Amino acid sequence: MKTYHLYAAPATASLCVHWMLIELGEAFDLTLLDLAQQEHKTPAYLRLNPNGRVPTLLVDGQPHFEAAALLMWLAERHGRFAPALGSAERGAYLQWMFHLANTLMPAFRAWFYPQEPAGAGQEEAAKAQARSVIEACWGRVNDALADDRAYLLGEAVSAADFLLTMLVRWSRNMPRPAECWPQLAAYSERMRARPALQEVHRREGVTDWIASGGSRTPRA
Amino acid sequence: MKTYHLYAAPATASLCVHWMLIELGEAFDLTLLDLAQQEHKTPAYLRLNPNGRVPTLLVDGQPHFEAAALLMWLAERHGRFAPALGSAERGAYLQWMFHLANTLMPAFRAWFYPQEPAGAGQEEAAKAQARSVIEACWGRVNDALADDRAYLLGEAVSAADFLLTMLVRWSRNMPRPAECWPQLAAYSERMRARPALQEVHRREGVTDWIASGGSRTPRA
Repeated sequence: MKTYHLYAAPATASLCVHWMLIELGEAFDLTLLDLAQQEHKTPAYLRLNPNGRVPTLLVDGQPHFEAAALLMWLAERHGRFAPALGSAERGAYLQWMFHLANTLMPAFRAWFYPQEPAGAGQEEAAKAQARSVIEACWGRVNDALADDRAYLLGEAVSAADFLLTMLVRWSRNMPRPAECWPQLAAYSERMRARPALQEVHRREGVTDWIASGGSRTPRA
Repeated sequence: MKTYHLYAAPATASLCVHWMLIELGEAFDLTLLDLAQQEHKTPAYLRLNPNGRVPTLLVDGQPHFEAAALLMWLAERHGRFAPALGSAERGAYLQWMFHLANTLMPAFRAWFYPQEPAGAGQEEAAKAQARSVIEACWGRVNDALADDRAYLLGEAVSAADFLLTMLVRWSRNMPRPAECWPQLAAYSERMRARPALQEVHRREGVTDWIASGGSRTPRA
């Protein structure tokens, strides 16, 4: 049995964890669930993850959830892709991991599942609110990149970049994709050049955005 | 200048960070903002925290935000209130920190600011959705406590308990407060006995819940 077994679904929140496992060069088992067939709502899966969402990562057979937590845990376990404890970047690392997970990810959930925040019939209002939160967040991230740093925390790539880049992709069909912000456009181009990001798209059978070179054209 | 300067507002998300600073016995400066006077939206404050929310923690003069991130960072800096790197509880620690911050906190935001998710006129629908998310989460947390463990991660109190207990308090006026779940009721009683939790309520001038011994009576 391999140490890691990832339960994922193509092009969902599990992509960042799948990507990081490839970056780490770790052997892992992969189960790709078909969400359209409700494979994330079966009793067997709900025993692994009571939220009925992806990803779930089994580590030595024990299930764990929350994509951002899994990224941080993998970084710790392998001593890569995170600032060392006690380093100057540690506060920014934790801040951005939580800010992306706590503010941007819930807003994307509202954007993609607009009936959730206030029920059926309110989808347009929910999407408008979500868009406003997402675009404000891109502004703050763009400001954080304004000193032309290569990555969110500086010159070293980290788990925060895997989370952020996945979320940049999620905005690709929005009226103003993240790549409309100039620092984010340059950042996204840099991240899309990573072989492991191209590889995870290939393994999940996803071609849009990564193949097209991003989404730099704003839509009306 | 003290190492830490906390910008907080009484009985908000900053309470868990304020509480932890007292638990740690660290000296810190405290600025209590008056949210009713929009003191969290002034240009000076927005320069510290572009989100215009509390808490902000200055560490050696540098501002950082996100309550859950601040709890984790304080735990790391002082080597207390978190499982050690490489320990068996580390995965659960990260999972719960993100799950509480990512699922429960946004649902509480929708509960307390119900015009946010889908605009004015949809407050009741937004509150109903938020309540459903919050109650499902209490069920999962209650299950995690079902082996009669003292704290969320086992027998050692951690930063996850400071975050969770603050959120338990937030439910006190809901139709089904967290303390309607039996394991959560026992847990809450244990946490409320901590002198530092009583002290942070005293310093913030908050008397409900802590003085009344919790909220164990469901409301219709």
